Amino acid sequence: LCAKKKSKGNWVNPEVKKEDAKVVDSCDIEDIGEKKVFCRCWRSALFPYCDGAHNKHNLETGDNVGPLIIGRKKSN
Amino acid sequence: LCAKKKSKGNWVNPEVKKEDAKVVDSCDIEDIGEKKVFCRCWRSALFPYCDGAHNKHNLETGDNVGPLIIGRKKSN
Ligand code: FES
Ligand code: FES
Repeated sequence: LCAKKKSKGNWVNPEVKKEDAKVVDSCDIEDIGEKKVFCRCWRSALFPYCDGAHNKHNLETGDNVGPLIIGRKKSN
Repeated sequence: LCAKKKSKGNWVNPEVKKEDAKVVDSCDIEDIGEKKVFCRCWRSALFPYCDGAHNKHNLETGDNVGPLIIGRKKSN
């Protein structure tokens, strides 16, 4: 059971910084500008930013993941 | 091959809003306050925020995922 659970098949992150014990990214609010789009599928070539790779992953697997968008409120 | 690829075993997101085609979250910079910690493991009970559930996932699977931290620069 343990061996099965520890298989890569259960990994959320297949490739990003696998040499690190835990991948944590920090971003200063002051550096967001108007908007930044952050990856939560772990398949972006621009990680920690989203490059749209979630769409390919969703299509191939039937998953439904998408990014986190941090942005400045639009003034009306 | 396709059937295998489409199995839930390849999902990054096992549980969050599976009825949605794509889970995208938006957060206004003005609502971040001093700091917010956002989940990228898709296992938080407080999704889209991190509740530490990534640690259990990493321990169980040998994965190495962690959150995205958005915060205000500390003044020195
Ligand atoms: S590329 Fe990963 S969420 Fe968009
Ligand atoms: S609970 Fe998901 S990254 Fe922390």
